[in-house]
Amino acid sequence: MTKASIDLNSDMGEGFGPWKIGDGVDEQIMPLISSANIATGFHAGDPNIMSRTVLMAREHGVGIGAHPGFRDLAGFGRRDLKESAEGLVNDIVYQLGALREFARLHGVRLQHIKPHGALYMLAARDETLSRRLVQTLRELEPTLYLYCMENSVTCKVARELGQPVVREFYADRDYDSSGSIVFTRYTKALDPAQVAAKVLRACTEGRVRTVEGQDIPIDFDSVCIHSDTPGALELVEATRQHLQAAGIRISPPPFPAL
Amino acid sequence: MTKASIDLNSDMGEGFGPWKIGDGVDEQIMPLISSANIATGFHAGDPNIMSRTVLMAREHGVGIGAHPGFRDLAGFGRRDLKESAEGLVNDIVYQLGALREFARLHGVRLQHIKPHGALYMLAARDETLSRRLVQTLRELEPTLYLYCMENSVTCKVARELGQPVVREFYADRDYDSSGSIVFTRYTKALDPAQVAAKVLRACTEGRVRTVEGQDIPIDFDSVCIHSDTPGALELVEATRQHLQAAGIRISPPPFPAL
Amino acid sequence: MTKASIDLNSDMGEGFGPWKIGDGVDEQIMPLISSANIATGFHAGDPNIMSRTVLMAREHGVGIGAHPGFRDLAGFGRRDLKESAEGLVNDIVYQLGALREFARLHGVRLQHIKPHGALYMLAARDETLSRRLVQTLRELEPTLYLYCMENSVTCKVARELGQPVVREFYADRDYDSSGSIVFTRYTKALDPAQVAAKVLRACTEGRVRTVEGQDIPIDFDSVCIHSDTPGALELVEATRQHLQAAGIRISPPPFPAL
Amino acid sequence: MTKASIDLNSDMGEGFGPWKIGDGVDEQIMPLISSANIATGFHAGDPNIMSRTVLMAREHGVGIGAHPGFRDLAGFGRRDLKESAEGLVNDIVYQLGALREFARLHGVRLQHIKPHGALYMLAARDETLSRRLVQTLRELEPTLYLYCMENSVTCKVARELGQPVVREFYADRDYDSSGSIVFTRYTKALDPAQVAAKVLRACTEGRVRTVEGQDIPIDFDSVCIHSDTPGALELVEATRQHLQAAGIRISPPPFPAL
Repeated sequence: MTKASIDLNSDMGEGFGPWKIGDGVDEQIMPLISSANIATGFHAGDPNIMSRTVLMAREHGVGIGAHPGFRDLAGFGRRDLKESAEGLVNDIVYQLGALREFARLHGVRLQHIKPHGALYMLAARDETLSRRLVQTLRELEPTLYLYCMENSVTCKVARELGQPVVREFYADRDYDSSGSIVFTRYTKALDPAQVAAKVLRACTEGRVRTVEGQDIPIDFDSVCIHSDTPGALELVEATRQHLQAAGIRISPPPFPAL
Repeated sequence: MTKASIDLNSDMGEGFGPWKIGDGVDEQIMPLISSANIATGFHAGDPNIMSRTVLMAREHGVGIGAHPGFRDLAGFGRRDLKESAEGLVNDIVYQLGALREFARLHGVRLQHIKPHGALYMLAARDETLSRRLVQTLRELEPTLYLYCMENSVTCKVARELGQPVVREFYADRDYDSSGSIVFTRYTKALDPAQVAAKVLRACTEGRVRTVEGQDIPIDFDSVCIHSDTPGALELVEATRQHLQAAGIRISPPPFPAL
Repeated sequence: MTKASIDLNSDMGEGFGPWKIGDGVDEQIMPLISSANIATGFHAGDPNIMSRTVLMAREHGVGIGAHPGFRDLAGFGRRDLKESAEGLVNDIVYQLGALREFARLHGVRLQHIKPHGALYMLAARDETLSRRLVQTLRELEPTLYLYCMENSVTCKVARELGQPVVREFYADRDYDSSGSIVFTRYTKALDPAQVAAKVLRACTEGRVRTVEGQDIPIDFDSVCIHSDTPGALELVEATRQHLQAAGIRISPPPFPAL
Repeated sequence: MTKASIDLNSDMGEGFGPWKIGDGVDEQIMPLISSANIATGFHAGDPNIMSRTVLMAREHGVGIGAHPGFRDLAGFGRRDLKESAEGLVNDIVYQLGALREFARLHGVRLQHIKPHGALYMLAARDETLSRRLVQTLRELEPTLYLYCMENSVTCKVARELGQPVVREFYADRDYDSSGSIVFTRYTKALDPAQVAAKVLRACTEGRVRTVEGQDIPIDFDSVCIHSDTPGALELVEATRQHLQAAGIRISPPPFPAL
């Protein structure tokens, strides 16, 4: 039941001009992960940072993904904003293309896409949005991985339409008994050893303890640790150590079959 | 000496959400031009408008170009903003990719790129910026046309490095004796017949009358009429009629040799 | 039962740099109304436009009000955005002060405040937001009129806490049987004579026909016509003529008792 | 020659939503300074932060000033942007009013205004801008202190027109032989003891060593330490200690005579 290998993903490039979110430790985290979700400018990220972050990911052999969010810099993409599915998917197409151009410039290809924050959570429950997003990805790039949660509408629709998915486990978020993560706009510091143990157990037993105190099964292909969680670097380091000590290799998802 | 055919380009998609610049007559102008410079979001344009505008250009067989500007919505990209060449070219790469993704989605390819407003004028005189832009285009897409003016630094550098250019004649701007256009932030209404006659003379005689009252030679491959010039539709219609009456065909630049 | 006088209010200054919403007919509408809701920069409006609009209102003796909205230029403040009541009221305080400074500069005083678009509708149904807003106005300026609808939570809370209100009738929106207006993000052209007749009937009979086809009583102190409704100038002109022909004077609300 | 007391000012509230500039140590710096320049939203600052920062300044008896900048969040107001003096002063009026409203809400009055970054430097050399700004302040509030440098055009014009000034000495910037500070977009860490000694010498001897290595006389009423300079807290602490050890009291400028 223990996984032989697992993807470890983190949000990278979450700056804006001289502005910072979190500890500003992308340089230290990048070598430790296997997939980077690169902010694409609407909730965070700017062209200079995107270019540097693509180069940094390339240098460490880390899979590159677009991390588009709501057009909401002031709220860091973590506030719901009422917009049509068509408008939101156009926002995603725009941001995906912007990152793809830097990948093109730096001679790498995109591995995945993962909506950010409130947009990810909205897609997870809104079939109209998820369907339009997946249909658009089918046309744009049928082999681009879509990161999502196993129990999300996004995952269901992607499977139905044939878009490859990478299902995520959230190391730094709590789960409730429905198997959903408890969404939070700001997060507080967590204990690295506890987080690492939670991830390791999920990887070896396929179970996680919920906020209600019960165990639920959890199925996933990638572990996500947010880089803006306070102490993110320590969380990534501890998780990596626990996984490697248990013989679990950290590597990006396999190249999807055509 | 008379040109057999000429490209006619105009800025398209210069809205932002419900906001408008100019007369809002893209639907009427698009069928009359051969190349569209599509606003890419920093000075004007948003993902919904970009998607619609690419579709509209495709429908009319109009060549599609990215029209990136300064990150200055409040100033519509017509104010100088002090930024490094590296930062500005990254802004351009970002916007170019955003438009390319809509072209990819709608099954068309990009024909050209043309910086907007103050960024175009800055590149025209700043060799560092033009050189970095052209070098980046060499890597991204060596056959993408770069729209510029014959007497600009941009044109000189593009020729030196081998990027194909389309040199523009500005129907709705005045020229001075240096062969430069007299830049203006806002423009007033012009007489369609006068503008059309000026364009026709430039196409047949290769000459234009300057604000100082002398004639200068002018060399170009495309005529630009700004869609935010008041009465733009009438200018385009009159120009088109004059050119066609003189037997000059309006067509996009030829596909550049590889 | 017929009103002897009525306030006529309209949103003014809804531009942004060179950008326009609606027909851009502020200059023509301003002399016809008695109260102006001036956009304060978050959904529309900028410092130059605010300054000019305050001067224009002063010239015509029109009452000046702040018209703060969500921080959402792309959506013109007509999209819901999830934010705390504290955050939204701070946004309102900020925008109110910005306009007040131009009033101070131009030697006029503020008459009222009226939240814009989705923020107005949110306050109308959200008691936490309305209560915090009214409590803040009590501290800032206990005689500042708050524009709202009779059947709104905003009106109820303002009455309870003692803030003076001006209750609005929407000339260019439909009512449903609950007495609420049917909110719409974009509006289409309306028949001026019909709109004017609807307003006149509301002023003389105190009744309005709903979308369901029944008559309901309606109580109000001011008639609102949106300046971004297509054909707004014609609506204002017709309404003004109908009211004046019936002997109803158009004038701002009386200065509130201290 | 030694000053009996000196004002110590720092930029406060330079956040935006969850975004940070610098070390985020406003809480620690505020009790140590006598005047706070509060960011007003265009280059940094948002309504929530402004409200909190005014309260914090009030709690510590710190003088409150508006710190308006260019509308340039992406560049943190440290990039030149070509705009008319009229437009820039309207931007300043807008931001000044926004902060004043929070001061009104929290029962304190404004002490001063100080343009930020590139806008401060532009005013220092541009007489048209300084004149329009000072004329506007004369009308808005003839006793509001204007922070500026002794050798600036701003200072000259303010004196001419009668607006009270507070002249600044920059603890964390280098001076050149013209008596100007060497402007920099980003700053690196400085040695607290060196900075403190430089300030103390300026307060006791009225002299500063330039980058060219010579001593020049310097006249000022306030010492500025930027809160986004790395290690800002240590700089403020060391400066405060040096000044107090020398018997120099740190206190805001006296209330200006009417």
